[in-house]
Amino acid sequence: MKIGILGGGQLARMLMLAGYPLGLEFVVLDPAPDACASQIAETIRTEYDDRDGLKQLAARSSCVTFEFENVPDTSIQILAERLPVFPPAQALRVAQDRLTEKTLFRRLGIPTPGFKAVNGLQDLEIAVAELGLPIILKTRRLGYDGKGQFRIESMDQIAAAFESIGQVPLIAEQFIDFQREVSIIAVRGQSGETRYYPLSENTHRNGILSLSICRPGDSEQSVAEEHILRILNHLEYVGILALELFERDGVLLANEIAPRVHNSGHWTIEGAEISQFENHIRAVAGLPLGSTAAKGYSAMVNFVGELPDRKKLLALDEIHFHDYAKTPRVNRKVGHATVNAREPRRLSEAVEKIFQISSARSESSIKGSTER
Amino acid sequence: MKIGILGGGQLARMLMLAGYPLGLEFVVLDPAPDACASQIAETIRTEYDDRDGLKQLAARSSCVTFEFENVPDTSIQILAERLPVFPPAQALRVAQDRLTEKTLFRRLGIPTPGFKAVNGLQDLEIAVAELGLPIILKTRRLGYDGKGQFRIESMDQIAAAFESIGQVPLIAEQFIDFQREVSIIAVRGQSGETRYYPLSENTHRNGILSLSICRPGDSEQSVAEEHILRILNHLEYVGILALELFERDGVLLANEIAPRVHNSGHWTIEGAEISQFENHIRAVAGLPLGSTAAKGYSAMVNFVGELPDRKKLLALDEIHFHDYAKTPRVNRKVGHATVNAREPRRLSEAVEKIFQISSARSESSIKGSTER
Repeated sequence: MKIGILGGGQLARMLMLAGYPLGLEFVVLDPAPDACASQIAETIRTEYDDRDGLKQLAARSSCVTFEFENVPDTSIQILAERLPVFPPAQALRVAQDRLTEKTLFRRLGIPTPGFKAVNGLQDLEIAVAELGLPIILKTRRLGYDGKGQFRIESMDQIAAAFESIGQVPLIAEQFIDFQREVSIIAVRGQSGETRYYPLSENTHRNGILSLSICRPGDSEQSVAEEHILRILNHLEYVGILALELFERDGVLLANEIAPRVHNSGHWTIEGAEISQFENHIRAVAGLPLGSTAAKGYSAMVNFVGELPDRKKLLALDEIHFHDYAKTPRVNRKVGHATVNAREPRRLSEAVEKIFQISSARSESSIKGSTER
Repeated sequence: MKIGILGGGQLARMLMLAGYPLGLEFVVLDPAPDACASQIAETIRTEYDDRDGLKQLAARSSCVTFEFENVPDTSIQILAERLPVFPPAQALRVAQDRLTEKTLFRRLGIPTPGFKAVNGLQDLEIAVAELGLPIILKTRRLGYDGKGQFRIESMDQIAAAFESIGQVPLIAEQFIDFQREVSIIAVRGQSGETRYYPLSENTHRNGILSLSICRPGDSEQSVAEEHILRILNHLEYVGILALELFERDGVLLANEIAPRVHNSGHWTIEGAEISQFENHIRAVAGLPLGSTAAKGYSAMVNFVGELPDRKKLLALDEIHFHDYAKTPRVNRKVGHATVNAREPRRLSEAVEKIFQISSARSESSIKGSTER
């Protein structure tokens, strides 16, 4: 069986590395000449909305999945007319629009931060009056890693905020002074069977995920599972789904979903019985789901912009290194490291060592760049 | 860094699947049009002794390794003149000749079964007189998975045995009625650092490995480590080396080495911190070695000839499935499954389930073949 993947970045790469041992084959569609997944699979190099490219992908595959949610609607249509597409198109449509997404959460009885559609300056003024300050103004579509967002702290910023991103439909969201941010990753098979990974606790830096920690037995696990189960079933979902949540005063508030494998689940490669990547592939290929049980405690550190010194990192006994084979670039995710431990204390020590090695590299390269 | 691999079978495939996350690239040389590693790497499709193919491999790689030990001597020379070859040529030469190999074991103070070179019928008669019956007559070179062997039980079989394989240099080996067969897998880095995996206990069926079990804390661990360390250092070895041993009455007798990743170490993919495949790649690439510590108890079941029913197998929660994407053929290794458990009892239960599923397939296909 050959599976088509829209997008040839690190997520596609890790999906394939998990799928090859199952005897599956892959074909990737990505316009980038240096797509890092192309190194390990045949690639169709066209734009995501190129009709011929999509037809080729459909002709060569038994089913199609994707590594990013902003797939053009017409592309999904072209594919869905020809072969099964997992996760289903309606999941993509929900995830592509923050307003549709949060409205669905509410409909399903899942608490969210207060929010309001903003189609003009007046809507924004009403939103501020209703939800209070600070408030986060976001584009409804095409935002990721903190892009397309504006945090409004005081009344005099309202006009400037609207001016800067108000050319497109917006959503205003109540600012949540959360105690922590968590994500739950779940998988639903073609039979409707569901499984849940233990919660990840996530820390961002400059709007980009920096650290995920999994400590099985989290007190919020069952609530998070109830929330994501409603979404999975409502969307008749197939594959891995991630749900990001804020925790404030013991309440989980849904922030957003990602209808794909998720950065906060990279620790599952070594830290869970069967990884999010393998379970996504199993679901998409119609195979039985695998165990989502965690093996002890895990932590994942993202490498953003550039990789740390490889030899120093690999000299740490406890770590697993993942180099996405991408060209370094500011704010680009280029790799990650995972630590797995029986005790939480050993986890923290190892994470500390990884941060030391990766910040040493950042400092020396900053020095290097001022010298040039 | 791009690593060249001679041979494109399942071992090359698993080496690459372990090496890609480290950001490494690969090129494979294999004459077979359906080499299963070709699916995930560029391939040079020539014979192993084709001068042009080898030159191409050397030109595209930073260093070369191999997945089988019977590499022609001239091929190694062509490569070694051009780039580093790991493990070193002398390790291959030792492993290619059972007489050289066992002579080296003895020189290094490692006990072996009694053995004797056989270059004529008279040598064989002397060997039988000295070593007793039964005796195993083997070709010195090019034997694997029990091929090129003859077990002599009684005096009247001597002439027939010699007749059947005596066209080439032979070795006669004392038959060891062992209590168990174990293997130790170790890795030596370019700096001379060594690490050892816990022993695997191996069961063969029709001369082909059927089951490997790893129970950390084996009483023979330290003796096995001492033996393999002598070999590693003597050969100035770089990479993974496997040493197969018979245990009889509390004594380990060295049977043979494999200068490569080894079937009895496949459990390390899920059962050890860093697998034999990743550690081989790390050694070859000059990177620091990773932890060889086991995560609990592990068992690996080989699928020989054909794969079991995929859906039934994947429905077992505890197992990890590896399909080599090879065409089924009698006596061909086409995949394996690994189980990892905290308790030995759960391991046995899971292995039992795997055997049930895979023998069900064998029976139904036997039935199928008689019907046709």
